[in-house]
Amino acid sequence: MKKKPWSGRFKEKTNERFEEFSESISYDKRLAFYDIHAGLAHVEMLAQKRIILRKDAKKIIHGLKKIEKEVVEGRFQFKPELEDVHMNIESRLFELLGEVAGKLHTGRSRNDLVLTDVRLWLKDSAAAIVSLTKSLIRRVAEKAENNLAVIMPGFTHTREAQPILFSHWLLAYAEMFIRDCQRFVEVLNHTNISPLGSGALAGSNYPLNREFLARKLGFAGITQNSLDAVSDRDFIIDFLSASSILMMHMSRLSEELVWFSAEGYGFFELPESLCTGSSIMPNKKNPDAAELVRGKTGRVYGHLMSMLTVMKAAPLAYNRDFQEDKEALFDAADTVKNCLEIAELLIAGMEPVPEKMREGCGRGFILATDLADYLVKKGLGFRQAHHAVGTLVRHCEGLGKSFEDLKLNEFKKISALFEKDVYKLLSLEQSVRAKDTAGGTAPAQVQKQINRIRALLKQMSTKSFLGRR
Amino acid sequence: MKKKPWSGRFKEKTNERFEEFSESISYDKRLAFYDIHAGLAHVEMLAQKRIILRKDAKKIIHGLKKIEKEVVEGRFQFKPELEDVHMNIESRLFELLGEVAGKLHTGRSRNDLVLTDVRLWLKDSAAAIVSLTKSLIRRVAEKAENNLAVIMPGFTHTREAQPILFSHWLLAYAEMFIRDCQRFVEVLNHTNISPLGSGALAGSNYPLNREFLARKLGFAGITQNSLDAVSDRDFIIDFLSASSILMMHMSRLSEELVWFSAEGYGFFELPESLCTGSSIMPNKKNPDAAELVRGKTGRVYGHLMSMLTVMKAAPLAYNRDFQEDKEALFDAADTVKNCLEIAELLIAGMEPVPEKMREGCGRGFILATDLADYLVKKGLGFRQAHHAVGTLVRHCEGLGKSFEDLKLNEFKKISALFEKDVYKLLSLEQSVRAKDTAGGTAPAQVQKQINRIRALLKQMSTKSFLGRR
Amino acid sequence: MKKKPWSGRFKEKTNERFEEFSESISYDKRLAFYDIHAGLAHVEMLAQKRIILRKDAKKIIHGLKKIEKEVVEGRFQFKPELEDVHMNIESRLFELLGEVAGKLHTGRSRNDLVLTDVRLWLKDSAAAIVSLTKSLIRRVAEKAENNLAVIMPGFTHTREAQPILFSHWLLAYAEMFIRDCQRFVEVLNHTNISPLGSGALAGSNYPLNREFLARKLGFAGITQNSLDAVSDRDFIIDFLSASSILMMHMSRLSEELVWFSAEGYGFFELPESLCTGSSIMPNKKNPDAAELVRGKTGRVYGHLMSMLTVMKAAPLAYNRDFQEDKEALFDAADTVKNCLEIAELLIAGMEPVPEKMREGCGRGFILATDLADYLVKKGLGFRQAHHAVGTLVRHCEGLGKSFEDLKLNEFKKISALFEKDVYKLLSLEQSVRAKDTAGGTAPAQVQKQINRIRALLKQMSTKSFLGRR
Amino acid sequence: MKKKPWSGRFKEKTNERFEEFSESISYDKRLAFYDIHAGLAHVEMLAQKRIILRKDAKKIIHGLKKIEKEVVEGRFQFKPELEDVHMNIESRLFELLGEVAGKLHTGRSRNDLVLTDVRLWLKDSAAAIVSLTKSLIRRVAEKAENNLAVIMPGFTHTREAQPILFSHWLLAYAEMFIRDCQRFVEVLNHTNISPLGSGALAGSNYPLNREFLARKLGFAGITQNSLDAVSDRDFIIDFLSASSILMMHMSRLSEELVWFSAEGYGFFELPESLCTGSSIMPNKKNPDAAELVRGKTGRVYGHLMSMLTVMKAAPLAYNRDFQEDKEALFDAADTVKNCLEIAELLIAGMEPVPEKMREGCGRGFILATDLADYLVKKGLGFRQAHHAVGTLVRHCEGLGKSFEDLKLNEFKKISALFEKDVYKLLSLEQSVRAKDTAGGTAPAQVQKQINRIRALLKQMSTKSFLGRR
Repeated sequence: MKKKPWSGRFKEKTNERFEEFSESISYDKRLAFYDIHAGLAHVEMLAQKRIILRKDAKKIIHGLKKIEKEVVEGRFQFKPELEDVHMNIESRLFELLGEVAGKLHTGRSRNDLVLTDVRLWLKDSAAAIVSLTKSLIRRVAEKAENNLAVIMPGFTHTREAQPILFSHWLLAYAEMFIRDCQRFVEVLNHTNISPLGSGALAGSNYPLNREFLARKLGFAGITQNSLDAVSDRDFIIDFLSASSILMMHMSRLSEELVWFSAEGYGFFELPESLCTGSSIMPNKKNPDAAELVRGKTGRVYGHLMSMLTVMKAAPLAYNRDFQEDKEALFDAADTVKNCLEIAELLIAGMEPVPEKMREGCGRGFILATDLADYLVKKGLGFRQAHHAVGTLVRHCEGLGKSFEDLKLNEFKKISALFEKDVYKLLSLEQSVRAKDTAGGTAPAQVQKQINRIRALLKQMSTKSFLGRR
Repeated sequence: MKKKPWSGRFKEKTNERFEEFSESISYDKRLAFYDIHAGLAHVEMLAQKRIILRKDAKKIIHGLKKIEKEVVEGRFQFKPELEDVHMNIESRLFELLGEVAGKLHTGRSRNDLVLTDVRLWLKDSAAAIVSLTKSLIRRVAEKAENNLAVIMPGFTHTREAQPILFSHWLLAYAEMFIRDCQRFVEVLNHTNISPLGSGALAGSNYPLNREFLARKLGFAGITQNSLDAVSDRDFIIDFLSASSILMMHMSRLSEELVWFSAEGYGFFELPESLCTGSSIMPNKKNPDAAELVRGKTGRVYGHLMSMLTVMKAAPLAYNRDFQEDKEALFDAADTVKNCLEIAELLIAGMEPVPEKMREGCGRGFILATDLADYLVKKGLGFRQAHHAVGTLVRHCEGLGKSFEDLKLNEFKKISALFEKDVYKLLSLEQSVRAKDTAGGTAPAQVQKQINRIRALLKQMSTKSFLGRR
Repeated sequence: MKKKPWSGRFKEKTNERFEEFSESISYDKRLAFYDIHAGLAHVEMLAQKRIILRKDAKKIIHGLKKIEKEVVEGRFQFKPELEDVHMNIESRLFELLGEVAGKLHTGRSRNDLVLTDVRLWLKDSAAAIVSLTKSLIRRVAEKAENNLAVIMPGFTHTREAQPILFSHWLLAYAEMFIRDCQRFVEVLNHTNISPLGSGALAGSNYPLNREFLARKLGFAGITQNSLDAVSDRDFIIDFLSASSILMMHMSRLSEELVWFSAEGYGFFELPESLCTGSSIMPNKKNPDAAELVRGKTGRVYGHLMSMLTVMKAAPLAYNRDFQEDKEALFDAADTVKNCLEIAELLIAGMEPVPEKMREGCGRGFILATDLADYLVKKGLGFRQAHHAVGTLVRHCEGLGKSFEDLKLNEFKKISALFEKDVYKLLSLEQSVRAKDTAGGTAPAQVQKQINRIRALLKQMSTKSFLGRR
Repeated sequence: MKKKPWSGRFKEKTNERFEEFSESISYDKRLAFYDIHAGLAHVEMLAQKRIILRKDAKKIIHGLKKIEKEVVEGRFQFKPELEDVHMNIESRLFELLGEVAGKLHTGRSRNDLVLTDVRLWLKDSAAAIVSLTKSLIRRVAEKAENNLAVIMPGFTHTREAQPILFSHWLLAYAEMFIRDCQRFVEVLNHTNISPLGSGALAGSNYPLNREFLARKLGFAGITQNSLDAVSDRDFIIDFLSASSILMMHMSRLSEELVWFSAEGYGFFELPESLCTGSSIMPNKKNPDAAELVRGKTGRVYGHLMSMLTVMKAAPLAYNRDFQEDKEALFDAADTVKNCLEIAELLIAGMEPVPEKMREGCGRGFILATDLADYLVKKGLGFRQAHHAVGTLVRHCEGLGKSFEDLKLNEFKKISALFEKDVYKLLSLEQSVRAKDTAGGTAPAQVQKQINRIRALLKQMSTKSFLGRR
């Protein structure tokens, strides 16, 4: 059956250059496992609804299981001239069973079939991503818990702003990754709907049991409009959008790992096993792992833009343009998974260098806000207090002094409200401890967050993601 | 108080060209109303926690309400030299109250404040979008119900494929818009979290009651990490992504409205009130409303790409780059709202032209699949049946005949399974009625969908969107 | 030499997962041929400048030529554990020659080398694209010349607007492709500059002769700043931008091929050899080739966005993020080449259906502008003439008449300026012939354009593109 | 003449909501000046070709000049209900002249007119951008020349790699901006072609002199196909692409200004006049100008993606979707201009801090490559030399020593080739001076580059950009 499934109507042979151009088997073979399972469910339903004979169904099921084994064991021979994964499997079925194989495609179309396959594939991939993200979060929380005493400068505008716990910095990324998890769970829910039984575009002439198909394949429900069902790629864009945001978070983490492990800061030490040297400069230890992750952000953004472009102004229902969905999707999923694994290695392997961080906190006037709040607590309005401390900063800068170097009368020249107790404020530990509001950097708050994240991770079991199954 | 809030520390004056370049008041004035409300909640909390005196709080509340009135009545004078909306309001408060105004900013930062404002604004905007989308869905369902007898050709690959109900075509878009609603509800939930009280980056030295602030402002919860809270723009990207997908749907609807109302098809008549003529060609009636909606898809995709770029590799926490978030967000929200309104006008005003649609169904061999299924039901395998009917199509094409023109023996020459009852199949009504599976185009199924959508719309009350408040 | 080229400085082994993540040999092996040639030129220069001994150079040249043969004949064994193409070739050289191979890398770095390779590769690829585009233009011109008598409706807003020559429509695409050629020639010129000899970032300690290297490798000149040279990816973005615009043109052509070959219009017949059928609907003949080309537009846009993202905010000089440049570039080049070939097949194989086009011209009031201009020539202002003919259109529409059906007195009721000679205007041939301004659709003008394009193609010989070599 | 120019044919009134939605006057009024000039040229040509009477032409010219004055002096009243700039000007002409105004639009269409306006506008804008870029380059060269003795660490992978001249670093950006200039000149050449006289889509019934129009308006030539001419937006995408690349360069410069002026490095001091403080932290001095420029990169990338999306799959010829071109174009041009001005202020105001840079050079083993090259010059193969110095680095790291701290016998233990003269190498000045190849960082080379850039700037006079006119 190497001739096209539609050859009846055609007089001319397909152009070879076009055949090569339009093949998808080189990448959609990834779907083979799911295509077979969709077939198994379909045949069982056809028999159940007496659309085909039970004995024919049995033969087809037997054949499909044989093919599944070939696929799983890597023995299946995919042939480019058979266009796509569906035709490859159907063709093999003909080889194994003869004409009865022709009954498999009763009441279904490649239009609904391919989406069933892709949705099944994506459910597994998204679940794997959730699982890797959780593992990364766990690692972040662990690192945070193990370093609760380490204080580093917190930044705004890439300027040292206020002291924070290193663990607090780490947990900011945990928050991002938690949102990523939630986003992928939403994508999973969007994906977890069965289009099977929608036919080519209009539904089917056979009394298909679509709910049965959905249940059998582990879907939470069925699509409600056949035209929409076969032309909908929203869930793929949802996935690419969630992936883009996750990669954006990765790029931020990478950026900070790169810069803060560089000579200017030295806050983190990256493991040599994730760095490379230079082919020319013997001194170099480069943070390639972090750089590559950051670079791969572009790749995923590109895939998102690609699919948005493909779908723009596409008329209903299926168009061949949509074949472009798969390579973007597959590559984005691979990239995200790889980056999650590398990020976990980076988090696990990075080491904070507390003395370098403390050095960073000694630059500038990182406790200035604490001084302003001190004045406010003594009764000054905040704006006035801010202005007073600003003037103090300028005064110190002029003299090359730090706050600790000032005599009390120098403080008092700026504001009479300063008392001897001001010196107690001038400690990083005190400053951090004072940020004791929810979500603040005080050790007690940070420990609370670690506990919350631990609890959350337990609660977000992968099973629960697909709870609607 | 025209001097900068940070002037204490600075010796030089801000460059005027830079001041102009960096101002945001020309667009963030949209946030004034929300900024005032965030201020009101904050002051109340400060008093409650005895961080400021109750009598000072009263004065500030009085002042803020006065300013609110000025804003609502359009009397408030925004001044570009005051940079942004926060400074404009604070400055006016100083004018009204004098030094006590300086207490408002106690324990908060523009970094957490601006996000509070934007989140409040976006909650309202997203809710408005949900409401407009529901209104559009309602209109689609109404149109579908009023035209249940109209049959049109359904397309794949822009080729007439199988007959479907015009209502079925309409409802495909209803499904897309329902997904859009769900997506915006998810965005709303992502947005509905209060960052207020996160300070500049590290939390606050004051015993702020963040839960009180959240409750007061109608948020469902609070952010959990101060660093993340002030540098997170995920919810904005979520919104832009949901908007891009919605616009993609709009572009598909527009594309079909444009082409199927054109001379080649004439399936739909668009209302003159949404068309324009030409400045040079007196004959033209152009579908500008649909074209413009389609064109605006690019604009929203662009905003999505813009924010993804801004956030790429941005270190923690706040960076001034983030100021770019607002114009993209505001313009996307405006665009989506406008397009939803125009789409509703288009749906309401378009009229199906049944005879033109029927003409479309008469071209090609639109009932070929029904013939193949007929043979299958008589016992042939589907692949064999498909091939037989394909041959029949080629036979007819050669003679310039349609299926109806064939004699029974011509049918029989292709397959002996054809019987006299084959002619009963050759009716559009019969074909449509036969697609009686869930989500199929049979009138009974379509009516079921209309009912389901009606029920869904009731269930998705806007209140419920913000149920977690 | 399986150990890393930088192993001297490192204590830890590279993590295997990271090694796999960071390898580029799976795709940069495409550069092997160019890498060897860059090596040959480099060694020759080193010997010439007496940086290495002539006899060592000879050995290395001999080794490289042997490797070149292995590469060309497909016998070369690329090893993933050797990271990239440069290390694979260097390692093989060690196998063949022993320690003397270590002299090849004297005075160069992978940072300048990889860019040399990529620029050489891109010059060939861009030249190939120019050549394919020219071939496509030639085909378009040929088709136009062979169908000069065919008249079709011209469109604005997807509405039949004025009659035009089918050849005129074709030549609109020729114009786009001519601009594409020019754009790729500009990209070629941007690419045609040698970075070799820039070292890792700062230049070289050896007295390299960079002009010699450039000349030897066929570059038109050398880069002027070593830091910029190794971190510049502009020419890749230039290429992706030119490719995106070309694909945009392709998408427009595809869109028109799809719709105007559809049942509603039937203006073009597409060859069966570039169409496919349906796995379920025996009647379908789908324009897949055109659809796929249109779909691949997204892919190329995505690559452009990807590289813009990678380069955003990248500090000087080389960063590992830049490794992401190659897959995007290679895939874009392949896609563009494939689409150009398919487009040429489509143009060659499509056939205009003149009677269907004439039918299209009979719908609406496609000669209305000619009537307005008629009145202007009789002395009316254009705006008044436009309004008069608009009224005439409305009058005809009300009565279901066309212009030809009107009696002279019906014309005169609208404007007394109408005379008997108005009927002479009511011919498509006359209308087309009258558009006799430069670039207009009159047959004489169209023939002139065909001649111009033919001349241009001759003048744009590929050699001239690289004239600056 | 408040009624639509096409009202003759229409029965219904335009929907008000749609009117508001579709107006463009709020932004295309920027084109008024160019629209009037296009009108002046057109009228003169009409008279010259005797298409209208000379006396009518005179009246219209008089009217247009009056309107020009109103526009230039800001007195012109743009009315939203008149849709766009063309109708606003035509309507005003009717007010001033009465019916004779109706002759202005003879032989032209808004389709060719709007492109003429936009091309004229863009020519001026692109020329202004070239001029601002040149001014920025001049400033960079000046700064470089004034600081030729300053040595800083050069980076790869954000790691201190080799010493370079600060001026060399600056000139890397000069190279980028020179390429930007060349790119905008190419855009100018693409833009500098007149579409006027293409009519709505098919050319004109009048004997228009298109070359005259082009010459009169300062265009270098005319478009060659009327269909293409009115639907081509390539030159806008070219502009957006060139703008995106320029902004990418800006983002790289900004990134380096932000980080290297931060506390960790302190290589540059940014002027207070381009920084801001914090509303809460009195210590902050934030590099907002650089951050904002970096952030605006996203905006321009977004506009590029927007226009690529708009044009994707747009059929010929004009579609209303294309109206979206203007806001993206205008905003991109404004953004680029503003960022160029701010970048010039930043370059002018930044001050290198040589001692901090020297400190940066003392970290790590920044002269390691020089040591490897030393061994090569003594006869070792480069790979072997690289490995030897790598081992030396590891040795030093273990002992906390720098190269200078090593005794000669410690050197010799690694390689017997080390001699006493190795100590001469261990100077930054020596290292920099040794990179004396073309484009290298040696002071002599850098001075050469400054001279070359100066010469280039003179040669690239703005006049020459439009030389092909």
